[in-house]
Amino acid sequence: MAGELPLKAYRMGIDTHQEPVVYMRKDCAVCRAEGYTANTRLQIKAGECTLIATLNTVAEEILPRGSIGFSDSAWEFLDLKPGTPVLVHHAPEVHSLSALRKKIYGNSLNTLEISGIIHDIGRRLYSDIEIAGFLTACAGGRLSSAETIALTTAMVNNGNRLHWPEYERIFDKHCIGGLPGNRTTPIVVAIASAAGLIIPKTSSRAITSPAGTADTMEVLTNVDLPLLHLRNVITRTGACLAAGGEVGLSPTDDLLIRIERALNLDSEGQLVASVLSKKIAAGSTHILIDMPIGPTAKVRDREQAERLAALFQSVARGLGVTVRCVMTDGSEAIGWGIGPAEEARDVLSVLRNARDAPSDLTERALYLASQLLGMARDISDRQALQEAREILASGRAWQQFRKICEAQGGLKQIPTAGHHIELRSQRHGRLRSMDNRRLAHLAKVAGAPSSPEAGLRLRVKVGEMIHEHQPLATLYAETPGELAYAREYFHQNRDLFDVAVEELPVRE
Amino acid sequence: MAGELPLKAYRMGIDTHQEPVVYMRKDCAVCRAEGYTANTRLQIKAGECTLIATLNTVAEEILPRGSIGFSDSAWEFLDLKPGTPVLVHHAPEVHSLSALRKKIYGNSLNTLEISGIIHDIGRRLYSDIEIAGFLTACAGGRLSSAETIALTTAMVNNGNRLHWPEYERIFDKHCIGGLPGNRTTPIVVAIASAAGLIIPKTSSRAITSPAGTADTMEVLTNVDLPLLHLRNVITRTGACLAAGGEVGLSPTDDLLIRIERALNLDSEGQLVASVLSKKIAAGSTHILIDMPIGPTAKVRDREQAERLAALFQSVARGLGVTVRCVMTDGSEAIGWGIGPAEEARDVLSVLRNARDAPSDLTERALYLASQLLGMARDISDRQALQEAREILASGRAWQQFRKICEAQGGLKQIPTAGHHIELRSQRHGRLRSMDNRRLAHLAKVAGAPSSPEAGLRLRVKVGEMIHEHQPLATLYAETPGELAYAREYFHQNRDLFDVAVEELPVRE
Repeated sequence: MAGELPLKAYRMGIDTHQEPVVYMRKDCAVCRAEGYTANTRLQIKAGECTLIATLNTVAEEILPRGSIGFSDSAWEFLDLKPGTPVLVHHAPEVHSLSALRKKIYGNSLNTLEISGIIHDIGRRLYSDIEIAGFLTACAGGRLSSAETIALTTAMVNNGNRLHWPEYERIFDKHCIGGLPGNRTTPIVVAIASAAGLIIPKTSSRAITSPAGTADTMEVLTNVDLPLLHLRNVITRTGACLAAGGEVGLSPTDDLLIRIERALNLDSEGQLVASVLSKKIAAGSTHILIDMPIGPTAKVRDREQAERLAALFQSVARGLGVTVRCVMTDGSEAIGWGIGPAEEARDVLSVLRNARDAPSDLTERALYLASQLLGMARDISDRQALQEAREILASGRAWQQFRKICEAQGGLKQIPTAGHHIELRSQRHGRLRSMDNRRLAHLAKVAGAPSSPEAGLRLRVKVGEMIHEHQPLATLYAETPGELAYAREYFHQNRDLFDVAVEELPVRE
Repeated sequence: MAGELPLKAYRMGIDTHQEPVVYMRKDCAVCRAEGYTANTRLQIKAGECTLIATLNTVAEEILPRGSIGFSDSAWEFLDLKPGTPVLVHHAPEVHSLSALRKKIYGNSLNTLEISGIIHDIGRRLYSDIEIAGFLTACAGGRLSSAETIALTTAMVNNGNRLHWPEYERIFDKHCIGGLPGNRTTPIVVAIASAAGLIIPKTSSRAITSPAGTADTMEVLTNVDLPLLHLRNVITRTGACLAAGGEVGLSPTDDLLIRIERALNLDSEGQLVASVLSKKIAAGSTHILIDMPIGPTAKVRDREQAERLAALFQSVARGLGVTVRCVMTDGSEAIGWGIGPAEEARDVLSVLRNARDAPSDLTERALYLASQLLGMARDISDRQALQEAREILASGRAWQQFRKICEAQGGLKQIPTAGHHIELRSQRHGRLRSMDNRRLAHLAKVAGAPSSPEAGLRLRVKVGEMIHEHQPLATLYAETPGELAYAREYFHQNRDLFDVAVEELPVRE
């Protein structure tokens, strides 16, 4: 059959994100004979590798005859070279889709069915719309606690797993729904490991924000560590502050998160499975969950936080790990800096006990570190906070942080931006609020996080009296063009700093 | 802002089916500054037209600098010309998505919320995965009868609508889940309209089958009729047998069906809304629903059929139309022909009372026509069947059919295929079954429906004794290449005719 005629692989140079797409000419004999049309799901074989991809048909002139085009992610998944012969067939039936339909029709799934779904998603056998169907069918409380346990287990098993036979307890922390500038992790890890806890922390890079913890740490040290190096750092310091991308922990989670984000869905079962699968795959046994509560945070109110905490506890019990959930104030940005370098400056100023250290960041980090200490030892909250404060004040946290950075490859100098400008108020009045979403966008327009030194340093706090021309923030960029572009954005969005004009005597 | 700098429209020549995709260079200043990455949803403005599309980023060499590429459907939707200036922005929030999330989280929706969702889907504001989320959230009995009524109403209102003020009652028929060769519609319409019923029938072309009713009718007459011509045909004959594509009835249904098909979902609420919205938009007041029941049919058993019939009735009441559901045998193919021309031959032989007319097709058509007569008049099933039989036997149905075809542009000669071959049995034995799915595929491999004369004419019936070399079917194709290709498929799939070898005396 025509399906057995190999076609030559051709890289289209199109990034479709993670959804694998192949491109075939409309006049291709294989397409016509097999009835392949746009959106047909095809099985592509190159050597021993197999992939299911969605077909887009293309005009003759953009693809050589006898070739089949690949999107970037499909090309990389199959590890192709130009001209590699590939075979094309109709996609075979994906057996776990019958379990998916069962769930969609309102039935619950057993462990085997859930592991089949996760396994097939991991092998890229699901289209984006099938993943969307799975996430939707599990949302709205339709994933029971037992199903969430099965889902978490399947996600853990469907990727790499770290083992730490030399340690009895492995600690970790996770924050649900980041707050701008809320860069507590490096400080918490330094304090907790200085106190003797084992806390091998891997973090993600920014996806939609101007900086992730990995971006901030990358300003200070090397964060891309092969597994062997990572183990070595932990053996020497009891901790690490590395980027998590390379280790392949719960990779299915990344596939699900992409579609959850596109659907703007925060299903509680998926959230718990996502967080715990990453942590358990990393070998953690004791996990602190920070839940900032606020009107623009992921967790809106106490009731939701408590429901989520209960689900975390029940799934953690099912999986044999210890979880502590804490609720924190999620109403305001934390610290002065936004963007990798500026956030790194805040982190160092706290660790060094600098006089201008942002006290909100200090207190938040101390609180979270004390909660970790409380999980590790049979001490009161007050004793734990006291111990965390002593470790920070005595310089032991700073010493420990430098030790971790040295083990990872050395503490680097924070870079200074080539260009900066003061953003000044046009009015006199009281600063009533700042729009965190647009502040984050401003830092991104200036180039963060791909330019690590780009970003903002806030100069005022909510509630302060501001006078005309007073600097509200300093804006940093790598190039004059990016600076000008960000300044232009600020000029069009001056109201992101809400300065209320005070009643003044009439001048005339 | 850079978002205000226009880019030049460029047609990529990529068919992504109905999902609109735009392509921007990775080094494009707008992409970098605004943080657009692969999968970002963008709003594209060209003149007064607006579209939401998904972004794919591309390598520099495949798109001229300063340009933005468009998939075929996006290009057509915006009616672009090469170089048309377009503006790109982040997609605005689609307000009805909050109603979608409400449904996903398990709440019911009111009429306003449902109409908002359907309106936005119709304006192409939803991505495929958002449509998948909507369909999944409505599956498994999660769409109440009230919601189904609201959905149907929204779909009717979101497209064109035909009005027939001159007639009191407008009849229509619909078959849930086609059976191969089940081409009853032209016969039923001829009989019912000969009996005086008004039955303006529009049908679809084949999507996955070797022929749709519109493909079969196109062999016999002109089916692409502008609305004015259509009205004229109906005024003159009381009926029509046209293609429905051009009239724009319930266009949202087509957008939903594409994703339902990809998810292999047959949600009952969606099915009822899909069928009734098309019929009500066409102005129908009395609708006969044929539900073939069988192991490979859409409706598997009587229980499912009854549940579906009850939902049809309740929604029909809510919308003020009359529906009658009948259950028929869906276990076997009907008639001898598969493919547009061969099915047209069966239709004509029934209408002409030919001696070799397939009696299963005749009886099925008579039954359905009698049910329509029963809806129209206060007569018993027996009287109705008697009347239908008389209309067919007397030649009035054939006369009426010719009248409809004449009004549509004249009755055409059925074309004869340029090439044919007999498919013969290699064994002696009893024909136990035929694989309908593979028979349909064989006809498609031979070129149906794009070559209308391509297809199959079956020569045997299930249960018959077959001797070696006896023809099982005649295979028709337009070109020798297609014929050879289809024959090759048959040789590799001989078991689609299941001929059980009879116990014969041992020869040695």
